[in-house]
Amino acid sequence: MEKNNETLGVLRHSASHIMAQAVQKLFPSAKLAIGPATDTGFYYDFDLTDGHAFTHDDLEKIEEEMKNIIKQNLTFERYEIPNVDAQIAEFKAEGEIYKAELLEEHRNDNPTLYLTKDKDGNVLFNDLCAGPHIPNTSFIKGNAIKLLKVAGAYWRGNEKNKMLQRIYATAFWNKEDLQDYLNFLEEAEKRDHRKLGTQLDLFSVREEIGAGLVLWHPNLAIVREEIENYWRTEHRKRGYVIVHSPQIAKSRLWELSGHIDHYRENMFFIQKDDDSDDQYIVKPMNCPFHILIYQANRHSYRSLPLRMAELGTVYRKEKSGALSGLTRVQGFTQDDAHVFCTPEQLVDEINEIIDFVADTMNIFNMSFEVELSTRPESFVGEIENWDRAEAGLKAAMDRRGMKYEINEGDGAFYGPKIDFKIKDAIGRTWQCATIQLDFNLPERFGIKYQDRDGSMKTPVMLHRVIFGSMERFHGILIEHYAGAFPTWLAPTQVAIVPISNEKHIDFAEQVYKKMRDAGLRVKLDDRSESMNYKIRESLQDKKIPYVCVIGDKEIESNSVAVRKRGVGQIGTFGVDEFISNIEKEIKDKAQ
Amino acid sequence: MEKNNETLGVLRHSASHIMAQAVQKLFPSAKLAIGPATDTGFYYDFDLTDGHAFTHDDLEKIEEEMKNIIKQNLTFERYEIPNVDAQIAEFKAEGEIYKAELLEEHRNDNPTLYLTKDKDGNVLFNDLCAGPHIPNTSFIKGNAIKLLKVAGAYWRGNEKNKMLQRIYATAFWNKEDLQDYLNFLEEAEKRDHRKLGTQLDLFSVREEIGAGLVLWHPNLAIVREEIENYWRTEHRKRGYVIVHSPQIAKSRLWELSGHIDHYRENMFFIQKDDDSDDQYIVKPMNCPFHILIYQANRHSYRSLPLRMAELGTVYRKEKSGALSGLTRVQGFTQDDAHVFCTPEQLVDEINEIIDFVADTMNIFNMSFEVELSTRPESFVGEIENWDRAEAGLKAAMDRRGMKYEINEGDGAFYGPKIDFKIKDAIGRTWQCATIQLDFNLPERFGIKYQDRDGSMKTPVMLHRVIFGSMERFHGILIEHYAGAFPTWLAPTQVAIVPISNEKHIDFAEQVYKKMRDAGLRVKLDDRSESMNYKIRESLQDKKIPYVCVIGDKEIESNSVAVRKRGVGQIGTFGVDEFISNIEKEIKDKAQ
Repeated sequence: MEKNNETLGVLRHSASHIMAQAVQKLFPSAKLAIGPATDTGFYYDFDLTDGHAFTHDDLEKIEEEMKNIIKQNLTFERYEIPNVDAQIAEFKAEGEIYKAELLEEHRNDNPTLYLTKDKDGNVLFNDLCAGPHIPNTSFIKGNAIKLLKVAGAYWRGNEKNKMLQRIYATAFWNKEDLQDYLNFLEEAEKRDHRKLGTQLDLFSVREEIGAGLVLWHPNLAIVREEIENYWRTEHRKRGYVIVHSPQIAKSRLWELSGHIDHYRENMFFIQKDDDSDDQYIVKPMNCPFHILIYQANRHSYRSLPLRMAELGTVYRKEKSGALSGLTRVQGFTQDDAHVFCTPEQLVDEINEIIDFVADTMNIFNMSFEVELSTRPESFVGEIENWDRAEAGLKAAMDRRGMKYEINEGDGAFYGPKIDFKIKDAIGRTWQCATIQLDFNLPERFGIKYQDRDGSMKTPVMLHRVIFGSMERFHGILIEHYAGAFPTWLAPTQVAIVPISNEKHIDFAEQVYKKMRDAGLRVKLDDRSESMNYKIRESLQDKKIPYVCVIGDKEIESNSVAVRKRGVGQIGTFGVDEFISNIEKEIKDKAQ
Repeated sequence: MEKNNETLGVLRHSASHIMAQAVQKLFPSAKLAIGPATDTGFYYDFDLTDGHAFTHDDLEKIEEEMKNIIKQNLTFERYEIPNVDAQIAEFKAEGEIYKAELLEEHRNDNPTLYLTKDKDGNVLFNDLCAGPHIPNTSFIKGNAIKLLKVAGAYWRGNEKNKMLQRIYATAFWNKEDLQDYLNFLEEAEKRDHRKLGTQLDLFSVREEIGAGLVLWHPNLAIVREEIENYWRTEHRKRGYVIVHSPQIAKSRLWELSGHIDHYRENMFFIQKDDDSDDQYIVKPMNCPFHILIYQANRHSYRSLPLRMAELGTVYRKEKSGALSGLTRVQGFTQDDAHVFCTPEQLVDEINEIIDFVADTMNIFNMSFEVELSTRPESFVGEIENWDRAEAGLKAAMDRRGMKYEINEGDGAFYGPKIDFKIKDAIGRTWQCATIQLDFNLPERFGIKYQDRDGSMKTPVMLHRVIFGSMERFHGILIEHYAGAFPTWLAPTQVAIVPISNEKHIDFAEQVYKKMRDAGLRVKLDDRSESMNYKIRESLQDKKIPYVCVIGDKEIESNSVAVRKRGVGQIGTFGVDEFISNIEKEIKDKAQ
């Protein structure tokens, strides 16, 4: 078989069998659950029925044992189960209750085992598995596998089931690829926004409030304020109106929108009062509110497109196990907009939104890839509208020579969509911006506009986000910049460090006030620590873009000696010169 | 008796007796509930047991009958009830069940009746009443009373009781004062923010969403954006940090804060999941979140004061009958801040907040009055802290020569407070800004700072709002300006009207683009309506500050002929000159 990226999954799946074999050899009480390949490696879930919990040392031992197994040059062999009942009975006899349960479920799918055999044909390991696998263990290099960590995982992801132990691991075709990946992991861990969130005092999630509900600390609120200012200015410039809608609304609204039927599980319902029938619900979406605002006025083809935007905070119930940092939350602010337009305006509108996304991501030095999802089997609306809309989306992208993947049949039941996957500084992709057509809500709410010929027509409705969620996008930004925000976003832009508090503090204060009055976010560090300590802390730990050191020479020449984050000393500048340089850098939103 | 403002309440209370007497003469089925004087007049609640509903004509007839009664020069006479049980029985026999109920309640308060008698000593009317009253009806001028309207009112304000009919009325010592008041009412009605809200497309409240939950339309969202920009800039300038906190939190937080005990009735509780004990609650307050953010770092006397602000949206359950427009809502955004400081810093902090309030209200051309509420009988914390805090609040106000009323014993159980009552353009006062000391929450959450001597101490905590609620403040602003926002706030600042669409539209478009690119909120009115219609609609109906008319002459001289709202033609200006004038007006936030 070819050893390339496409076949990595096969390699990893086989590696997971080898890991399970090694675990059962070293930990005979281990029962097997599932062990799939993933995008970045593989894992296996074990039930250690003797109660042992895997340690870091255990992982090293298992990895050694896997290398031993690999050296034995064992073969993988497909085996069609001739008698399912007998096999289930065998699994049960072995205590492999998870395998028995899975086989019971797949009894009509021509289930197969994969056998790991030695040269003499002895079966050393078998696993319920659809395959395929590598022919034999010589395809795996012992120095290209790595066990990474252990985590708890409920059987079938259900909190009511037993908690199993999941070993995460990875494997590559060669050790160089593995090393690259491990370097990437190390880099990603350094950039982990949860770690940086604490180090840089950016945000917190507190037990008293609940999982997935974020406290924005002052530092991250500054980043958000800059981004929201950009967001508002750009929206005004691009002809959007901005609105605000409440976070709770009666169930009547969600019946009209259909969310109460289709989205119920993710919605926070408010307890009813004894003396009232009113059922309030915390909003998971902004769209119905924007439609009500559309309804507040009569519209004609001349008043469209109406582009309505809101920084709308929504709440969506999630399993607490799935929540983490800023990127997986229950409460978040969408940079949400809805465009109401005529069918004739659709392509132009799509084009303008793509421009908007591209211009915005450019500011953060991020590129993106695009995917178009088209009509699924079950859908609402007229086929001709779908066809025209899909053609419109394609035309908009073709017109600008944009490349995109098509996910045929992957659109929502109410319309086709374009997804933007942005790429961060270490090459990871994140789903952020989306353009979603909607043939459903305009019909449900019966919204209209008067066309040129006087007839009342249903407008096309586009849902659109650029950042997606402010929480998530800030999490991505922290990782993208590894916490070292460019100057325009940096919570503190300049730290001023007098060499001696006695001799230099007066001038340092003058400089501080001058910079503050110029609108810079500046901090005067007059603690009684050493100059070098303060410089290092500012540039490296706090990731402040600039440190201005002030001593005798600087006072004499009305200047500051400047250290730049990630660069070091960049010279001595007149105070006004430095301020005007940094002002330009901020205005340009320079990276 | 003296006829002045202090005794107006006595006059009005007597007028309410006369109104009740008139009603019972004209509508014999009317049973009497209560009829107090108010700040602006009086009312009486009637139960028309025959089912009749008062009409506008009825009010005129009642007013006529009151004038007849007044002419008879009847006297008011105090009468101590000798036998309460006998009087209750008499009330009941007459069907006066509400009076009977009230007397039963006040049986131990030396209850009195007031009798209205004619010259011959005949009692024409009596009412359970503590008095005092005017000596006789000659003190009332028939042309200085006015019946205003009828509204429903539950007996004792309780929705479970019968709905009665309340007649609102007013009376003054003379007809000139009455006329002034009626003019004021007419002016107030013109300014009603609910009416202007529709006329100017500012906001709406929709049945599908629920009462007291506001949709901010694009026009009012612009006003809010300007005010929020001011708010953020000023807070940064004054050394505040800004944070964001979620709208829902677990009950644990509200147990810690004590709100779950003391504020339960106003809180929206979220339904629990079957498989979870987590009780989430929609936040009615921001304070506990800010305390958690305080807790995220260690603090010393050197890092205080910490001034933490948030535009925090909260939800408080209210009876739906009490909800109206923007001023009485269930969901609103507080411009909330909490200052954590040392006791030594308190006076300075109070002073800075008073400065902040004064500077802000000055921008809106509003003055204010101040009230200080001091320690109530039941309180938490040390008396010496209360004394020091109250002295601090007084010292801060005295230092600036500010006048204030003292409401002894009217503070909250957790601390003294300063209330600011702002005065709008027609002299009405509104409660907006508040500074509230809190001796309770810092103790409950155990927050600390390290003092100069190394010991850990509890900081002083101040709650502070300036606008109070963004919704309410915008309601007040609409009424204050009668919808005619000053240019810096106006949703549309300039309307451009070409005299002829054929001949002048090109230049009009040039001017439009130039103004738009200069950042003005400008509208090009190219509808095929007459010029005069368009000018009138812009200035009068839409209350746009400026209309720029463009004809042949203006094209020739690269100028615009300017009409100013409320003024009329103010001359012809070069396009650049007009733009720079209006830019200055906006920058100065001119009224």
